[in-house]
Amino acid sequence: MIDRVHVIGSGRVGLAAGARLSERGISVGDDDPDLVLLCVPDTAISDVSASLTPGRAWVGHVSGATPLAALEPHERRFSLHPLQTFDRSGNPAQFDGAWAAITGENGEALAVARDLAERLGLQAFELADGDRTLYHAGAVFASNYLVTLQRAAVRLGVPAEGLVPLMRGTIEHGFDLTGPIARGDWATVEAHKDAIRAERPELERLYETLAEATVVLA
Amino acid sequence: MIDRVHVIGSGRVGLAAGARLSERGISVGDDDPDLVLLCVPDTAISDVSASLTPGRAWVGHVSGATPLAALEPHERRFSLHPLQTFDRSGNPAQFDGAWAAITGENGEALAVARDLAERLGLQAFELADGDRTLYHAGAVFASNYLVTLQRAAVRLGVPAEGLVPLMRGTIEHGFDLTGPIARGDWATVEAHKDAIRAERPELERLYETLAEATVVLA
Repeated sequence: MIDRVHVIGSGRVGLAAGARLSERGISVGDDDPDLVLLCVPDTAISDVSASLTPGRAWVGHVSGATPLAALEPHERRFSLHPLQTFDRSGNPAQFDGAWAAITGENGEALAVARDLAERLGLQAFELADGDRTLYHAGAVFASNYLVTLQRAAVRLGVPAEGLVPLMRGTIEHGFDLTGPIARGDWATVEAHKDAIRAERPELERLYETLAEATVVLA
Repeated sequence: MIDRVHVIGSGRVGLAAGARLSERGISVGDDDPDLVLLCVPDTAISDVSASLTPGRAWVGHVSGATPLAALEPHERRFSLHPLQTFDRSGNPAQFDGAWAAITGENGEALAVARDLAERLGLQAFELADGDRTLYHAGAVFASNYLVTLQRAAVRLGVPAEGLVPLMRGTIEHGFDLTGPIARGDWATVEAHKDAIRAERPELERLYETLAEATVVLA
């Protein structure tokens, strides 16, 4: 279905995508592509899209936050958002095991996105264009805010190296909630709040808001 | 140094500790122990400790939140808090690769705690008794609140299975902050807030507080 792909953008995702498609035998370049994949900053998607002459090629972007409408004037359009963080290495192994949200203008576009996901080594799932903003906020919770938790823990005196096995272990154990809130041990929670207020007041509201949310989401 | 250990308590940590010490050739039981390890709920530590006749045996607990004073009337006392979550399997492999905060009444007690950590397969680091509450709050951030983030993400429509590689990937990439806040893309952050307010208002304050903390901690 897809033999030639033009990857535009050489950021974290663009580099890895080009490398993965090449190693899977797909011709990567701008010579009469079947598919143009925009791996550019969100704010550049509509300009780059508008600069492409509509033709037989499918046009897709890899943004979580951006609706399909940004791909005007193209009608053969889709999005594929890899649910993963990437470094700048361009290493295609970063796709392995990750999932990807795919959105298509129609069923044929979805099939193209699904095919592309498979070639990239991603597990595709459908995301309605209208659900995109909530979904992307969810990805921010799981990825960006995980970084925030790690930094808060380091600031409170937990060794950074020790956090890696702890956070991995929490994932391996299926996100089972343990600790003082799970035990209903509010005396410990209050002691935490007092100590944070005294020593790291910039984290007090964060601790408290997370404690409340933990109860709501339990 | 330690040949015979009495593990009191058969919860998550107690089971795994008994199994690990046994497999490392240490005699586990109440026959004239060198060391008594209290793996009981935090609220039971002082009662159980008070019930033990002081003698030559070292007495330790595995609580992150509880000060050494809870081990009265014993003076040969320490604590060892494994920085890990445990399931109920008793599988000693859960210790592998994890760190442990050790606190001792004096240098000799610290050496005992360090020896015990090594036998359990834990990487020890020293924690001052007075820093314990902040440290334990940090562990709650990294472990319990990671569960909260995962649940929030699921509630916003991210597939639970897809979150595992995403969160693992964020850890593997050294907690590098990516996403809209790292890019200073406040339009996307505002769009997230609007969508959450409309669809999942119970998560609005959490999203906003985490966004602010992400900026503070960056």
